[in-house]
Amino acid sequence: MRIGELARRTGVPVPTIKYYTREGLLPPGERTSPNQVSYADSHVRRLKLIRAMLEVGGMSVATVGEVLAQVDAPKRTVHGMLGIAQSAVSRTAVERGTAEDLERAERDAAVLVGRHGWAVKPENPGWAALVQLIVTYRDLDRDDLLALLDEYAAAAGRLAEAELATVARVPTVDGKVEGVVLGTVLGDAAMSALRRIAQEDASSRLAGPTTHSA
Amino acid sequence: MRIGELARRTGVPVPTIKYYTREGLLPPGERTSPNQVSYADSHVRRLKLIRAMLEVGGMSVATVGEVLAQVDAPKRTVHGMLGIAQSAVSRTAVERGTAEDLERAERDAAVLVGRHGWAVKPENPGWAALVQLIVTYRDLDRDDLLALLDEYAAAAGRLAEAELATVARVPTVDGKVEGVVLGTVLGDAAMSALRRIAQEDASSRLAGPTTHSA
Repeated sequence: MRIGELARRTGVPVPTIKYYTREGLLPPGERTSPNQVSYADSHVRRLKLIRAMLEVGGMSVATVGEVLAQVDAPKRTVHGMLGIAQSAVSRTAVERGTAEDLERAERDAAVLVGRHGWAVKPENPGWAALVQLIVTYRDLDRDDLLALLDEYAAAAGRLAEAELATVARVPTVDGKVEGVVLGTVLGDAAMSALRRIAQEDASSRLAGPTTHSA
Repeated sequence: MRIGELARRTGVPVPTIKYYTREGLLPPGERTSPNQVSYADSHVRRLKLIRAMLEVGGMSVATVGEVLAQVDAPKRTVHGMLGIAQSAVSRTAVERGTAEDLERAERDAAVLVGRHGWAVKPENPGWAALVQLIVTYRDLDRDDLLALLDEYAAAAGRLAEAELATVARVPTVDGKVEGVVLGTVLGDAAMSALRRIAQEDASSRLAGPTTHSA
């Protein structure tokens, strides 16, 4: 198809398609004559994936480029892809707390992770974030919120099993790799969205009808 | 205490404390003599709360200011505070899809929410995000990932009950309001962190030891 049809089918304007191509996010089309370039269905799919990462995942163009370079790498593995996608969507945790606070929080994080039977590498971006959260809850003397981490962990464990089982059922490596990227990028957004809805419902039941609109 | 001790106790530098005061995030200290201002324990706590929202929650100074104005409002309610905190941490969803896509996704979202017995207002930021996610999964033909939304919803429902029960146990309104803000801001970060860890564990078990380091 011509670039105009690619734009129509994806809703991405032609100048934006050219920009993504220049930035290396989208492979160039095939030049079929001196002034004609042809695009395939794979370009449609790639553009949809780019938009999902940018718009729903809130990632930068540079980060999307880094993830897609790995998606296209010949030596990619599904497990390796997970680490790359996780790092891409994770904000770097700001380091807070004294050395003593951090050590204590790391011990607590290790106990929590161990209680759920997980093996985790220290470079997992979730690990640093978890340690910083424990420091923060402690700093604010909110042991009650700290205790909720076990509930979050139980939920995260069940979800990870369901997510990985879903990826395992995809027959192609391409589909698995895309599933890991989307599951990581969109899964966080899905969980946040549903938490907001469930919290509003639980809170309005707790508040009762008289203060519901307050 | 003097501003120097406030800085020492919170780890926030003096110029930053002055900046937060100018921006209205931190109430000014009490002027006890022409060139001396005194700060209370409430300033220590407020500074810790500000840092948690900025650093762990990734919020802007302006957004933190808006949330704190509501925290300090005389007519605040715990349920109202939840809506404000939710809006503050939610990115605005980019609208995608045709009118038809959106209508279909809204119907699906309503069915999902109904299946979990939730009442939700259309202005809940989770609602727009959920509709956009459904449009995105459909656009990418990933019905397998769409099916996971029920698992996320079940987890979100259980967590909301646990979170609201924790807030309900706090004896003071100040403590409840702070709990709602922190639960919303830090809860998302906690869930993301633990998901990364649980996913790595589930993925490495699936990948098996030979490809574990790939």
